[in-house]
Formats: sequence, structure tokens, C-alpha cells
Amino acid sequence: MSEERLEALREGLRQQGIEAFLVPRTDEYQNESIPPGEERLSWVTGFTGSAGMAVIGLKAAALFVDGRYTLQGQQQLGDRPIALENLDSDGIANWICDQLHEGQTLGYDPRLHTEPGLALLQGYLAERSITLRPLEENPIDAIWTDRPAAPSGTARPHPFAFNGEHSRDKRLRIAAQLTEKCVDALWLPSPENCAWLFNIRGEDIPHLPVALANAVLYRDGSATLYLSAEAVGEGLLEHLDREVTVVSDKRLLLSDLRRRHIRKIWVDPQISNCWILQQLRALDIQLVQERDPVSGAKACKNAVELAGARSAHERDGAALCEFLAALPEAVDTGLDELSAVKLLYSKRAAREGFRGNSFDTISGYGPNGAIVHYRVSPESSLPMKPEGIYLCDSGAQYPDGTTDVTRTLALGDFPAPAREHFTRVLKGHIAIATLRFPQGTCGEQIDAIARRSLWEAGLDYAHGTGHGVGSYLSVHEGPQRIGKVATGVALQPGMILSNEPGFYLTGQYGIRIENLVYVKESGEYPGFLEFETLTLVPIDRVLIDTDLLATRERDWLNRYHQRVRQVITPLVDQHTANWLRAATEPL
Amino acid sequence: MSEERLEALREGLRQQGIEAFLVPRTDEYQNESIPPGEERLSWVTGFTGSAGMAVIGLKAAALFVDGRYTLQGQQQLGDRPIALENLDSDGIANWICDQLHEGQTLGYDPRLHTEPGLALLQGYLAERSITLRPLEENPIDAIWTDRPAAPSGTARPHPFAFNGEHSRDKRLRIAAQLTEKCVDALWLPSPENCAWLFNIRGEDIPHLPVALANAVLYRDGSATLYLSAEAVGEGLLEHLDREVTVVSDKRLLLSDLRRRHIRKIWVDPQISNCWILQQLRALDIQLVQERDPVSGAKACKNAVELAGARSAHERDGAALCEFLAALPEAVDTGLDELSAVKLLYSKRAAREGFRGNSFDTISGYGPNGAIVHYRVSPESSLPMKPEGIYLCDSGAQYPDGTTDVTRTLALGDFPAPAREHFTRVLKGHIAIATLRFPQGTCGEQIDAIARRSLWEAGLDYAHGTGHGVGSYLSVHEGPQRIGKVATGVALQPGMILSNEPGFYLTGQYGIRIENLVYVKESGEYPGFLEFETLTLVPIDRVLIDTDLLATRERDWLNRYHQRVRQVITPLVDQHTANWLRAATEPL
Repeated sequence: MSEERLEALREGLRQQGIEAFLVPRTDEYQNESIPPGEERLSWVTGFTGSAGMAVIGLKAAALFVDGRYTLQGQQQLGDRPIALENLDSDGIANWICDQLHEGQTLGYDPRLHTEPGLALLQGYLAERSITLRPLEENPIDAIWTDRPAAPSGTARPHPFAFNGEHSRDKRLRIAAQLTEKCVDALWLPSPENCAWLFNIRGEDIPHLPVALANAVLYRDGSATLYLSAEAVGEGLLEHLDREVTVVSDKRLLLSDLRRRHIRKIWVDPQISNCWILQQLRALDIQLVQERDPVSGAKACKNAVELAGARSAHERDGAALCEFLAALPEAVDTGLDELSAVKLLYSKRAAREGFRGNSFDTISGYGPNGAIVHYRVSPESSLPMKPEGIYLCDSGAQYPDGTTDVTRTLALGDFPAPAREHFTRVLKGHIAIATLRFPQGTCGEQIDAIARRSLWEAGLDYAHGTGHGVGSYLSVHEGPQRIGKVATGVALQPGMILSNEPGFYLTGQYGIRIENLVYVKESGEYPGFLEFETLTLVPIDRVLIDTDLLATRERDWLNRYHQRVRQVITPLVDQHTANWLRAATEPL
Repeated sequence: MSEERLEALREGLRQQGIEAFLVPRTDEYQNESIPPGEERLSWVTGFTGSAGMAVIGLKAAALFVDGRYTLQGQQQLGDRPIALENLDSDGIANWICDQLHEGQTLGYDPRLHTEPGLALLQGYLAERSITLRPLEENPIDAIWTDRPAAPSGTARPHPFAFNGEHSRDKRLRIAAQLTEKCVDALWLPSPENCAWLFNIRGEDIPHLPVALANAVLYRDGSATLYLSAEAVGEGLLEHLDREVTVVSDKRLLLSDLRRRHIRKIWVDPQISNCWILQQLRALDIQLVQERDPVSGAKACKNAVELAGARSAHERDGAALCEFLAALPEAVDTGLDELSAVKLLYSKRAAREGFRGNSFDTISGYGPNGAIVHYRVSPESSLPMKPEGIYLCDSGAQYPDGTTDVTRTLALGDFPAPAREHFTRVLKGHIAIATLRFPQGTCGEQIDAIARRSLWEAGLDYAHGTGHGVGSYLSVHEGPQRIGKVATGVALQPGMILSNEPGFYLTGQYGIRIENLVYVKESGEYPGFLEFETLTLVPIDRVLIDTDLLATRERDWLNRYHQRVRQVITPLVDQHTANWLRAATEPL
């Protein structure tokens, strides 16, 4: 069947007069989680990972994935005649240049790409006189007969009690920036940014409570929200003030802009797809290409959102503690990675306001823990024994906050080197948790501080140290992050980030210690910022080599455990409270 | 007189039909140290700092300097009708936009700017419809009647014993990269890069042993060196192999390229001036704009250069130790900042191979030490007493290596907080000196590791942590550095950098501890790199708060002092040896 799809797709390419076609893994909103009907990459290649790109040529085809997905890519490609390649722009460009000749054409769906995302490739192809052509119709959609329908979830008001700032105030705040930049309007391509700006939430994307909407904000603070009529839930129109027009037909966007005489519009090329930029240019609208101001505003949580985050983390911590307290007995009576996920889910589901996981739980026992972005399946799920190391990375959505937490546990005896590895990861975690830094510091400037103890032993981890997190929004939220790659984004008060150094010994075990933190001003030192930890779950003391900890590191851990015990004990049953007392004994 | 210069210059602007003119502080080679005849900024404004820009308009004028030069700028502008402003592209652009109207023109000398250096300004001006016009003749040169002649130093061979790789081998190594990039030639605008590639040294620039040359390298490894006939010193032509043509008249460059049918040339826009790029484009030569491959090759010192650096640092350390040993008595018998510079110079001058300072010595007593780029003058020179804190940042040129070292000393009693400040700076210094990091790590990723201890106390320093250093070349050499600003340049084995965290208490004292280090592969941990310290001078034990040092930090200091004692003792007189023994006693 998969070969048939490839052949049908190639026939489509021939009809459109192109020699190859790009298949990215995203939708027109550049979402990270996408609805089933947007899973074109998986439909063609079988690959279900969260990042990848395929190039389908008339004779050959290739799937490009990054290091974490090499194994999964191989497995899921199966016997499809598609080569597996390393995902980087050079690699894709070289592969295309090997396949296509001068004068030939590579097609792409302009709704599924951003211009910066294509820029490097475009440069390469131009040197070889290969044309990159936007297609009116996606040749996959033309042959995907049983394609799942677009999501039709309901968009509802997100109450002031959770967001702390009325949409009108947010809009006027952002509109002031439009005036400063001398633009008439701002194009809001991102459903997450619309959710924040209009204080609405939806249910169109797995794990991400947004509606598939986009919007235009005008310089006077009024706005047009493009949202299908079926999605308009109870009370939504009353909730949106009268300066927000809801338009059901997204195709009216361009005529709206024309009718409003928009001459200059702010667009963020990193999150806007090529199609819209091409259309705006065709209308002779001048583009000011800068980062969406809503992204930066949304990143800095206000006092209400931070209070919500604290509350959500208390309930989430209590649920996770119940899971951890129940784990030994569950392992004894028979548990595998998959049933552990279900057990944890049941604990969270019992908590007030639980709205589902914020991402697929990573439940990795032994060697599976060493796969950084492991997704457990019935085929991969290992039975858990009262020995070895278990890594569990999970999170939830609550109306007052989004959580994301990783704990690594010894289920009994464990390989000796794990103690040093765990302790070095912990030292990096504490180094970030206790760091003070001047205003203006970017995440890339402090990433090495989390790695230094591992580096000392010639070790490292191949992922970032921290990502931004939304407020009942995406568990991966920009623009801030802590990693090796330069963002140029200063960490600012109110930003929530993860603090998650790790270490992975292939074939044996994975270690990661992840708390969410938020940035706050240092009371004592003006001009300096600090992190405050939100997550409240014990860190496994059994895995710590206390000789490797400095006194101040041990003090931090004991203080943290004291706080966890104090806050969580009243929220859990007696069995969990007993477990918690032991788990938070001072070192 | 200065007003007359301004008025004469304005008359020149009117004649050229422009409303304002940019006066940068550099020459056509983008040198940091420049010959007297290139000191246009100082000629117009009086300002002699190492970085700055003036804009001279028909009605108003402004000098833009960065934070470290605010005070000096004020003083040196005196009563000239020139405003002092903060140096940043936004500031310059806004000032110009305030002065000039739509349709007016800002002139610039295309030989004195790079395109990336002007890009941001150009963008701003374009938005206001202000034209940026390259001028054929610099209006300052036209009226600067007593302008010092261009330097006419002699260029001589730099022996193989010091550079360890024949020019021909270097050229073939670089030429291989030209073949890879499919270019016909490489434009070498930098005298330093020419000095490295052809193994020659000159004497045209203060502190920098280069000849004012530039060159073209061809794909076959042959080259044309543009160097005035008077500069050709004894043995130079014999030293250059026959594949290097020396051309005295630089104006022949363009006709040479035409004659050679050069169609595609590699130019580094960061170090090439606008003039040459404009000329190349006019010849329809295709430009490949990437970093000069010689910069990267030159940065990684070979075994001979590293052995030379070690030897140079031994002699330099011995000289500095003699100075430090003589200091107490000299202070007692009457010393000021300026005579201290002379005393130190005399110690270095007695050492084998000494060829002068590698930059103007920073000799800052008490409050003068808090001025980061302080240059002592007869007016500023403070008498030194047997109390307080003295900062001395100096370096020398030897044919086998370039040095740069800062020591901060207590001359007697000192303000109490200095002990904590000094110790935190030292902790940062040791953190870099002992850091292990994976290949691919850039300087900006480790900068915070030097600052962390200061940040902890709400303190910081407003300069980078480390700069690259040449081999008998510039004391500030790219592309590597350790600082907050992203370079994208990975630290590589053989690179020499300074390690110089500091702290400055305005009006009281400055603290900086600077050693040179080089990058080497970790023997024990494949894929990891480490630093090895080159500088051999005791760090003032009196200023250290041992309670603040971790055991491993104290161990590092004791080991370092042991090494200094061992290597330097045989090289110095008995008085210095006695001082050295005390200065290197274990803590």
C-alpha cells in the first residue's frame, strides 16, 4: 500500500510538472503537535516522530530525521523504497542536488513552510539553477482519499481568574507597539498567540488547548479573529468585546486587509507560512518582518498566571507523588512502561481541573530511558522489575497552568556508574536553580553552567537545558530557551522555563532531572534576576553520591525537599505522606 | 584651532554636495592600531580612544564613544562644539535622522568602512530617504596639510624557527579551500593575515609587527603581494618563493585581476573595506562573501608557535616578576603610574628578543584602576603609596610570541571589600583555567562560567572574558573570543586566548586577573578540550579570601604558583627569587 501511495504521489508530481516535492511535518500554523489530517509525512513515509522532512522525487525518495529519531525512522520506514538521511539543510540540499538537474523544479506547499526555513535550501538550489516552486494544490491532499477531517473543537473563554489581563488591555498594549513601528496591522498566524491575546482556549490540537484560529490586530486595538463558525462555543462572542470581529471564512482575510486599506503590516517570518507572505506581497502590502510581539508578551507571565502555575504545580506534584509512592508495589505486582503511564494518568486525572497530558508521557525503563524522546508503544513497552533505573517525563494541562516534570528513579539495585552520572546531572540542575544573573542575559549564555559538572567527566547531553512553557498553553513555548543555540532572547521576569539537564548511556539507562522554574527579580541585588522552582516532587536520594555534592548543593536539595514535604503532605493520602516523609529526609 | 578644522571640513562637505560626513577610527586595513596619518578622528575631535565614530554635519557634530570612553571623550572634546553621544548603531542613526532631512546625503570614505559595519545605518537611512554616498576623496585629507606621512617601515622574513610552517605549505593549504569553494582567488585585505601567510613581519603599526600590505592568493597557491618597494627589506625577496609576485603599486590590483581573468573571488566582508567590494563589483567579478580562511588558520597555532609562546611567556614572566619584586622599594622611594610603566618596560627590554610592548600599558592606581581601558598620561598619573590597589595590564612582542598579562596588587593596606571582590574574580579565572568542554563549544557559551561567582554577589564586569592573541602579531586577534556576544566560532586546539575576568569599583579600585591560555585536546577525554595556562606570574595572595575558595580552587592556585616558582626562579636575580619564593608560598 505504501508503494502505491508513493507511485500515486509521483503521478501527481508529473501532472504538476515538478521533479520532486518537499513533505515537511507541520501544518499551516507551524504547529508542533498537529491534527491527524495534517500528518502528511506519516501518511507518505510511516514516520510519526515530531520532526522530519521527506523529499519525494520521481525516481528516489528520502526521509530526513535528526539523531534522536534515526532508530524510529528506520523501523517505521520498513521496506518502503525511501532512504533514511540525517536532517540538516546541507544534507537535504545535497540530496536534492544529486537527484535533480539544472532547470528542474522542486515543488513545495507554501502553507507548510516558512521563508526562513526554506532560505538556506533556496540558496543552494539557486546555485544549481534548480527552481523552488510553490504549488497551489498539495499533491498529497489530492490523493489522500480517507484524510481525517479538520478538527472541529469548541473555542471557549479563558476566565480572567486564570489569565489576569483582559483581552482589551492586552490588545492595547500590543497595539502601542504597532504605532511605534509605524505599521497599520499585525498578522497573528499562531493559534497559541491568538489564544493568549483573546483569552480563549480550544481543543483542536492534541495536548495543546487552542482553537485553529488566526487573527489580525489593528493599530487601534481592534481585531479580526478568523475562527470557523462551528468552533464558536458558549459565551465566546459575549466574552470577546465588541472591538473583535469574528470571521468564519478565513479566505476573507485578504479582502478584509484591502477593504481596511492596510499598507504596512507586521509579520513574523519565523511563524508565518510562505503562502501568506506571498499573498501580502501580491497585494502590495509592505511587510515589516520582526518577531511577533505577542510571543514576547505571552512569555512573561503576570502575577495571576504565576499564582496559577504555583497552584497547578501543587496539584500536579501531589499526583506525581502518589504515583511514585505506589510504584514499588505496582512493580512488584506487575507493571510495564505503558501501564505506568496509565497509572500516572489516573493519579493526575483525579486532581482538580485536570485537562489531559501536556505531551505524551516518556516512560523509559532501563535502556528505553536512554532514548531521549522515547514514546512508549505496546511493542516497545518493557516490563519493570524491582531493579535498574526508570525515567519518567510527563506533564499536564490545568486551566491555571501547564506542567512538565522528569524524575529518574532507582527501582532497586542499579548499575554503579549511575550514581556519579545522576549526581553530576543534579549538580547541573542545582547550578541553574540557584543561578543569579544580570538582566539582559540570554539562555544560551547560561546553558554551559548546567553542563559543567558533566563536562568535567567528559560527558554531555545532546539536548537543550530548558524550554519555555506556556500558561495553559504549549509545553514548548518560545521565544526563550536555555541551550547551545543562540536565541538573542534575554530572560525576563515572569518567563517560565524548564531546567532539565540529563545524561544518557545508550543501551543501559537515561537520567534527567527536570523542574519548571520561573524568572524573578532578585530582591537583594537590583539589576539581577534569579529562578524560582515551581515543580514540587522529591528527587531520588538513593541515586545521589553525597561526596560529590558541595555543602551549598546539599543545602539546596534539603531545603527543596523540606518545601516539597511541607506543601505536598496535606494534599495526599497517608500512604503517600509516609513515602514522602522518607523521600524528603535531609541528606 | 579645532573650530577652524571643523569649519574647513564643513566647507569641504559643501563642495562635495553632502550634508554630513562619517569619521570612523580606522584605516583602509580596518586596523585597530593605526599609523598617525590615519588618526582622522583625533584630528577632528581630539579623541584618541581606540574606538569611536564622529558625524560632522553642516550645523552640528557629534562624537560617539562606548561606555569605557565616556569620561575620556568629554575631556578630550574640551570646548569643541561637538556633542558626546553613546556609541551604538541606533544612536548614530537617530542622531543623523534628527539632523538630516529626506533627500539629503551622508558621505563616507569607502576605504574606511566595511559593508556589514554600515548595513544597519544604511537600513535606517533608507527608511528616511537619506542617501549614503561613497566619496572619491576624503574631505579631511584634503585639508589636513601637516598630515604625517604613511609609515615606511621595513618588511623582513619571519624565520621558520618561529612560525613552523613554510609560506608555500600555508598557501597550498588555503588554496585547497579556494578549490572547494570554486573561487579563482582570495582577497587578503588584512596586513596581519598577509604577515602570517607569507611569514613576514614589518614595523608599520605601533605594537603590531606588520607591514601595510595586502595580497591576492590564487587557486594554484601562487600569490601577489602588494607591498611598497621601500618596505622590501633585506632577504625578503629571497625568502618569498618564486610563486609570490611582489607588486609595489597597489593600484595595479584591479588590472592584475582583470589580466588574470578572475571571475569569482573570496572576500571577507568583515575585514574588506567597501571600496574594494565596490571596485570588484564594477569589474563584474562574482563575490563569495565568507570569513577569510587565513583568519581561522592563523588562530590555531602549530607546535612551533606554541613552543615559542611558552618560551616568550617564561621571559616575559621573569621580567614582570622583577618588576613586581622591585615595586615595594620603588614605591617607597617615589613612583607614579607613569614611572611604573617605564620601570616595567626596562625589565622587559632587558629580555632576549624583546621587540616592544604589544599595547600601551594600563597602569592604574586606586581609582584609575577602575577605568577599564585607562591610558596613563602625565596629567592623569597618580603617585603610588604603600597602600591601596594597583592594576597593571601589559604585554610584549617577542619574535616567538605575543604576551598580555594583568596583575592586581595590594601595595599595603587596602579597602576591605577588595578581598571578596578579588577572590570572586579569581574564582572566575580559575573556573575558565580548569574548564573542560566539548569540541564545538564557542566562547560565548562559556563566558558566564567566569562571571558566575561575581553574579552570585550581584556584581559583573562590562568587558569580555577573553580575546584571541596572535603569534608575534596582534594582541587582539580574531575570530575566537570569550564574551557575551555570539561569535559562532568554536574554540579549537592551538587557539590562544586571554582569561581575564575583572571587577571595577568606580572611584576606588579596579581588579583584573589575566593570563593567556591555549586550547588543547583533553588527553583523558576524547572529544573534549581544555585550556593550558601560558602566563607565569604570581597572583597576589594577600588579596585572597581563602574561606571563599573551594579546595579544588586552592589546589589549582598552589599548583600554578609552584609551576611559576619552578620555571621563573632560574631566570631571575636573587632579590626577585626571594620575592618569588614568598609570593608563591602555598595557601
